[in-house]
Amino acid sequence: MEFNSLKDADKRYIKSIVSPERFSTGTSNLDLHARDMSSHPASRPEAVVWPAGREEVSRILSYADQRRIPVTAWGAGSSLEGNPIPVRGGIVLDFSQMDRILAIRTDDFQADVEPGVIYKELNHKLRHTGLFFPPDPGAGATIGGMVANNASGIRTVRYGSTKDHVLRLVVVLANGEIIEIGNRAAKTSSGFDLLHLFVGSEGMLGIVVETTIRLVGLPAEFASAVATFQTVEDASKAVFDIMRSGLDPAALELMAPECIERRKDLGLPISPTLFIEFHGPTRNQLTDAVGIAEGLCHEHGCREFRPGLDRAERDRLLEARYAMGEMIRQEHPDHPSIVIDVAVPISAYPEMIAFAREAARKAETGPAYTFGHAGDGNIHLVINRGGKGRESWQRIEEVNRTIVDKALALNGTATAEHGVGIGKAKFMEAEHGRSLEWMKKVKQLLDPNGILNPDKMFP
Amino acid sequence: MEFNSLKDADKRYIKSIVSPERFSTGTSNLDLHARDMSSHPASRPEAVVWPAGREEVSRILSYADQRRIPVTAWGAGSSLEGNPIPVRGGIVLDFSQMDRILAIRTDDFQADVEPGVIYKELNHKLRHTGLFFPPDPGAGATIGGMVANNASGIRTVRYGSTKDHVLRLVVVLANGEIIEIGNRAAKTSSGFDLLHLFVGSEGMLGIVVETTIRLVGLPAEFASAVATFQTVEDASKAVFDIMRSGLDPAALELMAPECIERRKDLGLPISPTLFIEFHGPTRNQLTDAVGIAEGLCHEHGCREFRPGLDRAERDRLLEARYAMGEMIRQEHPDHPSIVIDVAVPISAYPEMIAFAREAARKAETGPAYTFGHAGDGNIHLVINRGGKGRESWQRIEEVNRTIVDKALALNGTATAEHGVGIGKAKFMEAEHGRSLEWMKKVKQLLDPNGILNPDKMFP
Repeated sequence: MEFNSLKDADKRYIKSIVSPERFSTGTSNLDLHARDMSSHPASRPEAVVWPAGREEVSRILSYADQRRIPVTAWGAGSSLEGNPIPVRGGIVLDFSQMDRILAIRTDDFQADVEPGVIYKELNHKLRHTGLFFPPDPGAGATIGGMVANNASGIRTVRYGSTKDHVLRLVVVLANGEIIEIGNRAAKTSSGFDLLHLFVGSEGMLGIVVETTIRLVGLPAEFASAVATFQTVEDASKAVFDIMRSGLDPAALELMAPECIERRKDLGLPISPTLFIEFHGPTRNQLTDAVGIAEGLCHEHGCREFRPGLDRAERDRLLEARYAMGEMIRQEHPDHPSIVIDVAVPISAYPEMIAFAREAARKAETGPAYTFGHAGDGNIHLVINRGGKGRESWQRIEEVNRTIVDKALALNGTATAEHGVGIGKAKFMEAEHGRSLEWMKKVKQLLDPNGILNPDKMFP
Repeated sequence: MEFNSLKDADKRYIKSIVSPERFSTGTSNLDLHARDMSSHPASRPEAVVWPAGREEVSRILSYADQRRIPVTAWGAGSSLEGNPIPVRGGIVLDFSQMDRILAIRTDDFQADVEPGVIYKELNHKLRHTGLFFPPDPGAGATIGGMVANNASGIRTVRYGSTKDHVLRLVVVLANGEIIEIGNRAAKTSSGFDLLHLFVGSEGMLGIVVETTIRLVGLPAEFASAVATFQTVEDASKAVFDIMRSGLDPAALELMAPECIERRKDLGLPISPTLFIEFHGPTRNQLTDAVGIAEGLCHEHGCREFRPGLDRAERDRLLEARYAMGEMIRQEHPDHPSIVIDVAVPISAYPEMIAFAREAARKAETGPAYTFGHAGDGNIHLVINRGGKGRESWQRIEEVNRTIVDKALALNGTATAEHGVGIGKAKFMEAEHGRSLEWMKKVKQLLDPNGILNPDKMFP
């Protein structure tokens, strides 16, 4: 695609659409929107705009589409595959000022929100209602970013991904047209499902300016436990047994010893560790579930099973799990890393885990860290570059490909929750085959000039 | 769209693709594929083909696309909006011979099935595994038909619709191309979600030839109850209170007295009736839930609350609920009917119920029957024509429109689970606004010659 850079006249016009204080070409603002939390190279936009409403978004897109100027939506910048990096420059639309919770309908278990609402803040505001929005990505993500990325997280094993909680969207298309998709009923079989086409489309098909999300009742009770094992493979086998037992955990997280080692504050033995949580209406039921899980862990050589974590212990552990990515970055400030995010059917999880760790070991990369939303069959392996040269980067790229190829051979996916962005584009042909061509055609249909978040997803 | 009728040469060619015994132009076969369970006028295809595999489907579509011959997929013909009626003639592809269960992977809670597999038979075969496929449409539906229609039913209130259980599809496109979409991991954020675009597309974007579905563990325990009320409005208010309490019923069905009256065999008082069921791991928990539900029912003037139905009683009641449509048809053999299938947010359910019943009463139609998957905010109102003339048909059409308009005004949907087909096409503009134009563009993209199930969905 050929794009135009922003001329002075463009800047004047766009500034006239929004108010001047919501338009910036200042270096620090450009730098703040040049990279996400990944190691992908930074690329500055030419201007940052903070829209205040859908009409502004519509007018900006309409103009940019005619002028062939790239437009990339920006949530919190917490993505991990370079998803919102404006690689072709143009305009970044930062949604942090469209952050109103428009309605909370507790009777219907629903909320209408603008895309800039922060996930954690939404759940904080919902707390007194007894409801929550469950697909917890753990970072400072916005709802708009979660929708764009079909985000999931620690709670997905029980409660599903973002796509399972979106009922209605208001989307601005590349040409500036505003369309409303879906409705507020609990179910529908009316027309083609355009809703899910936009969820997870990484801002490449349209820009979400309002969402109706389905909420879930907070559990009356929870029970959390930590289990430590001899080997990561043993832990992964316990994961498989817990999932196939039908116990329905509300969290089932794996952390390898190298992840625990850096967090002495948790007071855990430096061993492969599972964090297990159940939600339910009564304490007795949860005690039963924890008991069954304990038995299954012991069948796989569990060293220590510590049930009955209190809320403070539980929260500290979850916080440590959430902070894993940042902890690794701080540990290796000069080692750009690749974050592997494959998922496989749960029966293949032990094989996938063993394969991935062995692949990293054999390649003699820099330090590698294994963790993940194990109950979903999801593995994160953060592989740091060993040296400084191009060769060491190639080596971790090769490990990445080897692991993704294995996940695909096991009928899994190259990217379970981080989206495609820049980093996973190279695997799309292998994963999707001919259907990738139809994804391209859908892109061409909805964004014929290719202005929306260009040069992503497609190799 | 202009289509060609089947010439002798076409018939010979298509017969050469499949074996001769799987091709028919016999009158009785054409008649058997001329109408579904709705009152929409019958329309014969010109030929019926029973494909045996995806390659045959591909070759037929490729040929039909070049020759501009309509092709309509056929499951069990149990739909209620004329969805598979071949209104433009052409070829009907009957999938009853592609009915293999290709794999059941109990460890992964998954099955791979061909589209002709009968829903009930699948669950029968799954019984010994402790798993089931929950979106129960109640009719003799096939999995292919359920995917085409995003079917849901009695279990949807807890377990979701078909769309929530499809992980992977193999689809033959209008041009004969075979594409595989999705994978067998529990979650993915890889590429645009084409999967959900095909689920619920009523065979208008492509024809599904294989599906990987997600299964669910059978509940260890269930508890069923029947509650009878003074008025349907009282019952609908109890529904709202049960849903907003967060009790998570596994069935919450409403039957108005006119539905009960015809089923004296159930031994129920002729009153507005709720059927309530809970699923869970322990009997104690369910007893608690039933107790809470009972209290909520009594707050709305419940006459009798009968908990602790045994399996035989429960099954008889569910069978009666499933048989409602057929019972009404048999009761009024000469009165074609309209089946209303709106859904609204649960807080609007009492208002919607009252409005719909009053609209039917005022219009002095023939006998009307109210029932529905109340927990989903879904209302079925079967309205029979009062007389024989055109005027009496117009009258029920007007009631239909009045009720749909109200459902849309309450932020609901014109069709919760029966799809669009012929009968709901006239409401699509009101429901979808500008996004309907994009549905048309998606249709144009995937089926440029419009051969797949033509003249449906779009007004």
